[in-house]
Amino acid sequence: MPDTSSASSVGLVTPDTAHFDTPLELACGRTLPSWELVYETYGELNAEHSNAVLVCHALSGHHHAAGYHHVDDRKPGWWDAHIGPGKAIDTRRFFVIVINNLGGCHGSTGPASVNPATGRLWGPEFPLMTVPDWVNSQAMLADRLGIERFAAVVGGSLGGMQVLQWALSYPDRIANAVVIAATPKLSAQNIAFNEVARQAIRSDPEFHDGWYAEHGVVPRHGLRLARMVGHITYLSEHAMGTKFGRDLRTDSPSFGYDVEFEVESYLRYQGDTFSTRFDANTYLLMTKALDYFDPAGAHGNDLVAAMAPVRCPFLVVSFTSDWRFAPARSWELVDALLHAGKAVSYVNIDSPHGHDAFLLPNPRYEAALGGFMQRVAHDAEVSSTASGDSR
Amino acid sequence: MPDTSSASSVGLVTPDTAHFDTPLELACGRTLPSWELVYETYGELNAEHSNAVLVCHALSGHHHAAGYHHVDDRKPGWWDAHIGPGKAIDTRRFFVIVINNLGGCHGSTGPASVNPATGRLWGPEFPLMTVPDWVNSQAMLADRLGIERFAAVVGGSLGGMQVLQWALSYPDRIANAVVIAATPKLSAQNIAFNEVARQAIRSDPEFHDGWYAEHGVVPRHGLRLARMVGHITYLSEHAMGTKFGRDLRTDSPSFGYDVEFEVESYLRYQGDTFSTRFDANTYLLMTKALDYFDPAGAHGNDLVAAMAPVRCPFLVVSFTSDWRFAPARSWELVDALLHAGKAVSYVNIDSPHGHDAFLLPNPRYEAALGGFMQRVAHDAEVSSTASGDSR
Repeated sequence: MPDTSSASSVGLVTPDTAHFDTPLELACGRTLPSWELVYETYGELNAEHSNAVLVCHALSGHHHAAGYHHVDDRKPGWWDAHIGPGKAIDTRRFFVIVINNLGGCHGSTGPASVNPATGRLWGPEFPLMTVPDWVNSQAMLADRLGIERFAAVVGGSLGGMQVLQWALSYPDRIANAVVIAATPKLSAQNIAFNEVARQAIRSDPEFHDGWYAEHGVVPRHGLRLARMVGHITYLSEHAMGTKFGRDLRTDSPSFGYDVEFEVESYLRYQGDTFSTRFDANTYLLMTKALDYFDPAGAHGNDLVAAMAPVRCPFLVVSFTSDWRFAPARSWELVDALLHAGKAVSYVNIDSPHGHDAFLLPNPRYEAALGGFMQRVAHDAEVSSTASGDSR
Repeated sequence: MPDTSSASSVGLVTPDTAHFDTPLELACGRTLPSWELVYETYGELNAEHSNAVLVCHALSGHHHAAGYHHVDDRKPGWWDAHIGPGKAIDTRRFFVIVINNLGGCHGSTGPASVNPATGRLWGPEFPLMTVPDWVNSQAMLADRLGIERFAAVVGGSLGGMQVLQWALSYPDRIANAVVIAATPKLSAQNIAFNEVARQAIRSDPEFHDGWYAEHGVVPRHGLRLARMVGHITYLSEHAMGTKFGRDLRTDSPSFGYDVEFEVESYLRYQGDTFSTRFDANTYLLMTKALDYFDPAGAHGNDLVAAMAPVRCPFLVVSFTSDWRFAPARSWELVDALLHAGKAVSYVNIDSPHGHDAFLLPNPRYEAALGGFMQRVAHDAEVSSTASGDSR
């Protein structure tokens, strides 16, 4: 049983659901007539509503970022290392919101939800979501919660792209932006890995063109392969070498195809568990949202021009051994923000853990993120007091 | 029609086949009772048999390395850039031999051959081959052709591993070793990519535990995915970016899963063509040979100790943008050879083409390889003359 009463844990948490009957117009030209967002919150919203922090999740993430759902949970939420009392995103000072993105498979409306127009599951007919679509839906939840302006929007990887989009779509509603282990657009190699993952899923005979649920099956092999490929890109070559080396699981080679090297065992395990808990249509949709993200695209590939709407200061964080979204991808964003005359702090954190580093504890990372967030909290509290004075 | 009469082409070539009834004992403990090797030769063996060069092929390679089989071939052999009259491996001076490795799918005995013990195709029961096994079989062909000692053994990638093994298994039968874009052992990440490829093939329902031929099918989807993953690792991120960028094949996003970005089109095409021409059991076997190669393994992971048998000079070549077998992997080999007191030349060729660079034309690469091979040819000719004098 986890220590849910630990002073640095948000403890037991329960998700909330917000239902929207306001149609959401999407970048693809389609409209979601009604939809739901599942989300969690940690900490207390202050009287002035000035201390809200939105945390955006990555490819396979969800709304459960901190604390525990049950006393017998083996693991806390995915970003528990950084969200909690006294942590970098300090829930004694911030009201933290984490939303399962639309199209997800953890409770928000997605491919596994019922399409009200047909009475059938959405399945592959669920519209492709883009990062701007997610940001719009998140803004509508903020309206619902009475949050006019976030003290900060924070996210890693695909979450970092949502943060950047917030600063572009809603410059008046975001006071600070924290973009971690992200990129202003995918490289051809990034897209290539996503395409392999998609082809793995789509060529699985159990995929049934996305109607697998109606056939009572799951494209497990495809999801498993997709996750295996993903995992290779999440870890640095060095981290994989340190973690597994070329260790055989038996004393001598089997000269067969059973699992043999430790790294094979790890990948198969990761793939197997993922294939039982993640929805294939959601995986496809999330990778496509990654591929499409390209704020400079509408500005003749001029990222400096694309940054014009930004009004808030940025913290940009990269990790030395991340080769999925390497430090140079963060430099592109930092350079563009600087050239556009925006305020940006940047830190490249020394870590051997590759892209996964953004999820893991790391003293320098916590110091950088925590230091920035302390200033954010201070500003939010000053603004709260100043606003209080003027009443 | 290709210019088969070009002064720099070996022109039209015809493969040869050598049949062996001498059993080949394999590292896995099994024995191939009878077997065949398909091979090609270019140039003329001199009277002293001192000018033979063995070229070893990589994962998906074969014996057709130079020239054309038919006047209507669209492309020459896979290493035509470097084998021919006046080229780095100059067929006016060398007698070049290229063998389809055992277990291959281009004519040598392999999973698609008939198992004489059962009268059935070998299929998945074909024994796993290792790099030392291949080298032993190549030495038996050399015996057959009357070649006691190769002027040089040359190869890239998995071919480079065979070269290294030649210098260890038959130090008296190799006068020079050229190891290109290779590594003395795979990293955990390399093994991980191979494992994804294997799982893609083995989880394809058309694989039938390797008996797909008896079912009259081919695990096309699995092979296709395996090749797609492979291709990502053959190209540098930069080369992929330069070649494809994020170019869409249409004017605007489709918001669907049809091929959309140029890089997707390329990967699908590469995967599709490969899946129609390569044997799945061979692919599995070749990746396993890569995984197992580890000459230092038997020496307590001491690569310097493992190099003790080496008697010939080495040329080691790496390419700056190769991330499959990065330059640092070549440095390990170079360092070990130097520490073991062996003669080694090393060159790191500036190329944007990633691992594929070893197959492509490149003036500095040609100069380095060609320069080394000129000295090899000179030594072979001097030895031929000296030997002739003593008669």
